[in-house]
Amino acid sequence: MSLVRVHNFSISLDGFGTGEGQALETPFGHAGTRLMEWAFETRTFREMGLPGMTQGSRGVDEAFASQWGTRVGAEIMGRHKFGPQRGPWEDLQWQGWWGEDPVFHTSVVVLTHHPRPLLEMDGGTSFHFVDADPVSALAQARDLAGGLDVRIGGGVATLRQFLEADLVDFMHLVLVPIILGRGERLWDGLEGIEARFDMEATPSPSGVVHLIFTRRPR
Amino acid sequence: MSLVRVHNFSISLDGFGTGEGQALETPFGHAGTRLMEWAFETRTFREMGLPGMTQGSRGVDEAFASQWGTRVGAEIMGRHKFGPQRGPWEDLQWQGWWGEDPVFHTSVVVLTHHPRPLLEMDGGTSFHFVDADPVSALAQARDLAGGLDVRIGGGVATLRQFLEADLVDFMHLVLVPIILGRGERLWDGLEGIEARFDMEATPSPSGVVHLIFTRRPR
Repeated sequence: MSLVRVHNFSISLDGFGTGEGQALETPFGHAGTRLMEWAFETRTFREMGLPGMTQGSRGVDEAFASQWGTRVGAEIMGRHKFGPQRGPWEDLQWQGWWGEDPVFHTSVVVLTHHPRPLLEMDGGTSFHFVDADPVSALAQARDLAGGLDVRIGGGVATLRQFLEADLVDFMHLVLVPIILGRGERLWDGLEGIEARFDMEATPSPSGVVHLIFTRRPR
Repeated sequence: MSLVRVHNFSISLDGFGTGEGQALETPFGHAGTRLMEWAFETRTFREMGLPGMTQGSRGVDEAFASQWGTRVGAEIMGRHKFGPQRGPWEDLQWQGWWGEDPVFHTSVVVLTHHPRPLLEMDGGTSFHFVDADPVSALAQARDLAGGLDVRIGGGVATLRQFLEADLVDFMHLVLVPIILGRGERLWDGLEGIEARFDMEATPSPSGVVHLIFTRRPR
């Protein structure tokens, strides 16, 4: 069975998945790096090329972070995760935030109202730009995943769409003890969706709380 | 030292401390009892007269719930915690949600733009109706508390005012895994206040997560 999964998706205590004012230098807007600092210390994120001085932690943050790629054959992301541009592409120079050899190493479906040609990168990552609703985007991602799971990579609006459409089987959120005050709220429009999930919470010595949502049998 | 404390204050995953539509039958609006169900099983709340068949749990929920009254000499609450009425009092028949012998057993300062005479109840509870800002309300509560701590009892707007004024020394929130979607948000206007607090999270088998905020040295 090919599952739809969410991993390492951080939200603030007040429910924001990203801050206000995304730009080239600030992918998370005024949130800066605060939503992802818990991950910087993990071995999994270190191996993605994040800065750090040590080998990375092996504690509970790493235990959850490392699930990210296992049995995943494709990712779906929104255009704002791919880049800070808005509207029609002015040129095709932008190839994502992740350099020549992106961390994904699978097909990635990028949801956008402004498709552009297939972009094949080093290391097995290929970006497929698609103007589609969640159901048909998922069908395309499943084709590309070759029987493996599909990860919903965010950002906030994309994850919310997949939750609204009840397409998510597993969701790992990371509650970060900060009050962002502004940005994009994950839970807007999702009143009552807890009824679909079992939830388990695990605090980490780093200060975050890992929240695991597992879809109940339909 | 007399501390200002918050206990057993529940919020939904999306940050609401109460639902929409408070009325006589629905103190928490459309949230119903969902924000407080974790407490119904505790011995502390059983002893306040909540319905239940057993002696009440002694686990982590009770461990936190039972801190509620210790060394507390007065409570401050907003008018919406005291009752569902709005505007001038039409009569003085309403004596709160808690019957003849309210659970507080201390002085209670009720913040309202429509003061009414002191209301003395059985069991040592007295309601003092005061039109005051947080600083002067706290001064009055401290006088009534006789050197003991002061509890901020809520509702949401009252707690938010005391957080905005940086008057809270200790805060026990209970994160309930539901998405309320509507109601009053605790965190609005409080961007960045995590810098004032150390936070510790403890999950409970009941499904909630206890969040303990301790004011850092000023």
